[in-house]
Amino acid sequence: MKRRDFIKVTGLGAAGAATLAAPAIAQSMPEIKWRMPTSWPKSLDTLYGGAEMMCKLVAEATDNKFQIQIFAAGEIVPGLQVLDAVQNATCEIGHTASYYYFGKDPTFTFGSSVPFGPNMRINQAWYMLGGGREVLNEFYKSYNVISLLAGNTGCQMGGWFRKEVNTPDDLRGMKFRIGGFAGRVLQKLGVVPQQLAGGDIYPALEKGTIDGAEWVGPYDDEKLGFYKIAPHYYYPGWWEGGPMLLAFVNLDKWNALPKYYQSVLEQAGHYSNNWMMARYDQANPMALRKLLAGGAKLHAFSPPIMDASYKAAKELHSEVSATNPNFKKVYESLTKFSNDSYAWFQVAEVGYDIFMARHSQS
Amino acid sequence: MKRRDFIKVTGLGAAGAATLAAPAIAQSMPEIKWRMPTSWPKSLDTLYGGAEMMCKLVAEATDNKFQIQIFAAGEIVPGLQVLDAVQNATCEIGHTASYYYFGKDPTFTFGSSVPFGPNMRINQAWYMLGGGREVLNEFYKSYNVISLLAGNTGCQMGGWFRKEVNTPDDLRGMKFRIGGFAGRVLQKLGVVPQQLAGGDIYPALEKGTIDGAEWVGPYDDEKLGFYKIAPHYYYPGWWEGGPMLLAFVNLDKWNALPKYYQSVLEQAGHYSNNWMMARYDQANPMALRKLLAGGAKLHAFSPPIMDASYKAAKELHSEVSATNPNFKKVYESLTKFSNDSYAWFQVAEVGYDIFMARHSQS
Repeated sequence: MKRRDFIKVTGLGAAGAATLAAPAIAQSMPEIKWRMPTSWPKSLDTLYGGAEMMCKLVAEATDNKFQIQIFAAGEIVPGLQVLDAVQNATCEIGHTASYYYFGKDPTFTFGSSVPFGPNMRINQAWYMLGGGREVLNEFYKSYNVISLLAGNTGCQMGGWFRKEVNTPDDLRGMKFRIGGFAGRVLQKLGVVPQQLAGGDIYPALEKGTIDGAEWVGPYDDEKLGFYKIAPHYYYPGWWEGGPMLLAFVNLDKWNALPKYYQSVLEQAGHYSNNWMMARYDQANPMALRKLLAGGAKLHAFSPPIMDASYKAAKELHSEVSATNPNFKKVYESLTKFSNDSYAWFQVAEVGYDIFMARHSQS
Repeated sequence: MKRRDFIKVTGLGAAGAATLAAPAIAQSMPEIKWRMPTSWPKSLDTLYGGAEMMCKLVAEATDNKFQIQIFAAGEIVPGLQVLDAVQNATCEIGHTASYYYFGKDPTFTFGSSVPFGPNMRINQAWYMLGGGREVLNEFYKSYNVISLLAGNTGCQMGGWFRKEVNTPDDLRGMKFRIGGFAGRVLQKLGVVPQQLAGGDIYPALEKGTIDGAEWVGPYDDEKLGFYKIAPHYYYPGWWEGGPMLLAFVNLDKWNALPKYYQSVLEQAGHYSNNWMMARYDQANPMALRKLLAGGAKLHAFSPPIMDASYKAAKELHSEVSATNPNFKKVYESLTKFSNDSYAWFQVAEVGYDIFMARHSQS
């Protein structure tokens, strides 16, 4: 070997020695690829869009080292089996609505919203600082998942009815498309709840197989065109006062992540949460205007219907609490926080909103 | 050179060659240290706490590679000169309220809240997706800073009065401690606005040098003890319907950051934003209860006072818009978005909140 070659090689060796210090840094950004099934068709671009945003933000914050591939409902996992796929580690993370799984345990309802639960801000404050996250994650632990805040729709609408409903009697015997735990409240009022996927609702309403249907709010509802055949549009959707969307992460996959990737995931969830809420707040007003121009008739649920529904919900919550300690624990945590919060929220916030709503028409 | 040595050196060289690919990774997490002056004393643990949370989250998400050191008001920069320190690159980032700088240009008010501006959710939706961020950052550009969403207090209170105020006449001649642009609205109603730092308010109220004072809301107000000497506590604080807190970043420092550190900063801001809002929503109810137990008397501003204030605010906004194109542009963007939003917000959200507030007492 010639001296020149030796120097060259040593040079490389020196570079090697210098970069040998690098692995500590290099390892600190491992390349990770995850898959995220969701419960959303791409057409629900606020819900699917929020999940997509979360994946995008995680990649952005890690210089594309941590990549999460998103899948629409049914692409790799059926829309209502996202939790199961994450639980059994088929996928590492999923974006869904917790209350879709209330059949496994009604406690799942709280990860979205419970009938007559609080509005978006109070629900979120409870989750973040009111002990909500802790009691929920303790419950989710037995399904081998952990939850991350990942979206909110704000208060939803009460749905579309072919005929006006004025009293609790008008609800009796009515076939109404509604998902989740809220159907059990409506059953107490004599409603026959129907579980139908989004695409099946319009034809069922058209044929008169069902008398009404709830979906989300103006922006999502407008796309499905219910106003053409069931024009009476009621509010508020008391079963979804401020529903959260959660991302579920498989607990073993979560624990195996470096701490800073856990932090990146959480922060991406918060940004996506705000993006989804803002997207609804931006898109709903225009959609509502379009619906009204198209013939939708806006009604508030009458006080007798609201009161009867509230009473039925409270009865159901008590019944379930009596036999399900998980439900009882989460319900008590949420209710205490929510009652305290509304005592303040009604002071400055609600009064100001009423004033501003009146003056925004001018 | 012996063959064994050669092999050894080549080995190192090979390692070197392998790790030569690493710099792209190693460089992708450069160590960065920034300083963040704030406008907050540590005792305002929601505002200061939100800023602190942002620094903590940035460090967490980057495995401590990107560190931001926080400073309370006055530690390295006076509380009301945070913008200036960031503008001239004395510090890279600052956490403050945009409207503190309305003396430079009243357009700064929109980065927090304008009198009779929208609530927290609508303000945030405007900033995120309604073009707010773009028009504000275009304005901030001439101050060599860019803004990041970093907090919200929710609707504030209208402040503490030594005597009841029932009509606009009762306001005339009153000396009232209030910060920012809102003082100019109150001037139109004959109020003499006073600029006083937090610590100077109590003695001024006690001596009767001032007749009233606004601060934030129950949690922050309770600490300063105003209820003992000016027990009439009015709502809503129409000058702060949903004020944002922004972090200002020096534009050159921002542009010099790797894209993924920019993304980390933004996401940390969103999480902190949610933390601050949740912290207020969690802490205000208990503080309000304490204040009422301590003798505070809660009053809504009367409709004549609200209407006169609204009229005065609209007049001022028109006057400023007529001579200040920056103000006009941002004001029109916000007002259009806010009017549209309230048309929807009042439907499901406000009705639901009224119902829930009434039923949360039971």
